Amino acid sequence: MFKRVAIIGLGLIGNSIGLAIHKANAAQQIVGYDSNKPQAHDARKSGAIDQSYSSLAEAIRGSEFIILTIPINTMRSCFQDIAINASSGTVITDVASTKAQVVSWAEEYLPTSVFFVGGHPIINKDIFDDRLSSAVLFKNCVYCLTPTKRTSSAALDTVMKLIEILDAQVRFLEPAEHDGLVAGVNHMPFVISAILTNTVVGSPSWVDAALVAERSMYDMTRLSSNHPEVYRDICLTNSEAISRWLGEYISELSAFRDQLMLHDSNLFQTFNKSKELREQWQATQGTSQ
Amino acid sequence: MFKRVAIIGLGLIGNSIGLAIHKANAAQQIVGYDSNKPQAHDARKSGAIDQSYSSLAEAIRGSEFIILTIPINTMRSCFQDIAINASSGTVITDVASTKAQVVSWAEEYLPTSVFFVGGHPIINKDIFDDRLSSAVLFKNCVYCLTPTKRTSSAALDTVMKLIEILDAQVRFLEPAEHDGLVAGVNHMPFVISAILTNTVVGSPSWVDAALVAERSMYDMTRLSSNHPEVYRDICLTNSEAISRWLGEYISELSAFRDQLMLHDSNLFQTFNKSKELREQWQATQGTSQ
Repeated sequence: MFKRVAIIGLGLIGNSIGLAIHKANAAQQIVGYDSNKPQAHDARKSGAIDQSYSSLAEAIRGSEFIILTIPINTMRSCFQDIAINASSGTVITDVASTKAQVVSWAEEYLPTSVFFVGGHPIINKDIFDDRLSSAVLFKNCVYCLTPTKRTSSAALDTVMKLIEILDAQVRFLEPAEHDGLVAGVNHMPFVISAILTNTVVGSPSWVDAALVAERSMYDMTRLSSNHPEVYRDICLTNSEAISRWLGEYISELSAFRDQLMLHDSNLFQTFNKSKELREQWQATQGTSQ
Repeated sequence: MFKRVAIIGLGLIGNSIGLAIHKANAAQQIVGYDSNKPQAHDARKSGAIDQSYSSLAEAIRGSEFIILTIPINTMRSCFQDIAINASSGTVITDVASTKAQVVSWAEEYLPTSVFFVGGHPIINKDIFDDRLSSAVLFKNCVYCLTPTKRTSSAALDTVMKLIEILDAQVRFLEPAEHDGLVAGVNHMPFVISAILTNTVVGSPSWVDAALVAERSMYDMTRLSSNHPEVYRDICLTNSEAISRWLGEYISELSAFRDQLMLHDSNLFQTFNKSKELREQWQATQGTSQ
């Protein structure tokens, strides 16, 4: 059992972690901090944390395990606060969507007396809404950990204990390997959706086009509603992998466009391949569409 | 009231039209034809049509109003059959997703004694499943008509009567104007989804990437499951407009990739613009996402 756990950042992820730790009765005390005071108040009220602090330093002090569920662009200054205030032996983990940059910041800013393990739970929700917070949010989710040569096995045990509490499935990856994979499957789809919106919904013909738009356009632009700051930070900390994937995508799209202009009968094979690939994936998911 | 209406093609659209005409009690007889015999049998059984014929010619003969809900690649030979078998004065309409090519084929193959009006109902379903057939499928849908200078007003009245029966809302467009609009909002989203699937799900890293894929990837690839023949035909008959839209999209995507590689702070503005555009559209739709 943990004595005192600190959750820094009290949105959907932070609150759900707090609720799960409480439900498992796995900590004597869960404290929290969020720069947004009403949000911290709500987390306390919902039972996700036992106590909220109005300063980050107070939440850090005396906590043996610190879970960072904060925006990527606040990560560096948070590491600096931890460097000053955390006791020796403290274990720190995060849940950010990109890992190489965060791990590198941790190595740069944190003293060797505290231990960082990079983490990333894969949540099957793309619209993050605090009201969806739940002790079972992570049940059966894949939870990536990106330990490095410098990661102590005791620190790793602490974070794996958390993953067990969350009922998630751990998956170990190198930070750069993690970032390369999520760039293709998670970051690029957002970019594709946002640019589709800007190209078509932002075009002068949109007023007329909207009247003949099918559900497919509505669905394909839905991701554009996500928080722009979150995806700006993801892009800035994973630019190389995302731009590599976008390069491949643009090249396949251009090749398709050439096929199209030539009225190439291989159009069928192109679409048939995508149908087969998608159906093979669907078969592993057990959902109807 | 129509004396005898023929529905050629007995899938989701054809059956739903038959059910709606029956429900409105607007025809003395509805006959049908589908090259797929079990499908024709099912249409008869479900009450979408009163009688099915095993030859297209028999369904055409004696029908004053012919509704074509057939694949685009069978349209030309169907017009040739109509040219031989239809009585003088027959009105013909279709429901194909592209209009300029279909209208041009009609003008080329049909004699001047019969009257064609191009149509395209906008159905908010992208997975066409015959089991969804319903007399109210078209209720409040936009139903595009693309009359030309050669379209007689009597023929137009006949098709508008059908749209009234379907409880849809008519919208008049030039064939080329129609095709330009739907290329951006309906055809390009499918292509974007299919090529995303081929690029990412078809990549060697997919086995590992699938484990960290969020719901967003699953949603963005869903359209890939549509019929490849349908989209091949759409692409072949609307290649110019789709390739124009794809050109713009590729150019915006490339510009974004340049921003990304430069770590340009305008990334936020790009994403914020797409969020605002999507939310403005959403506000007009009255749905939650």
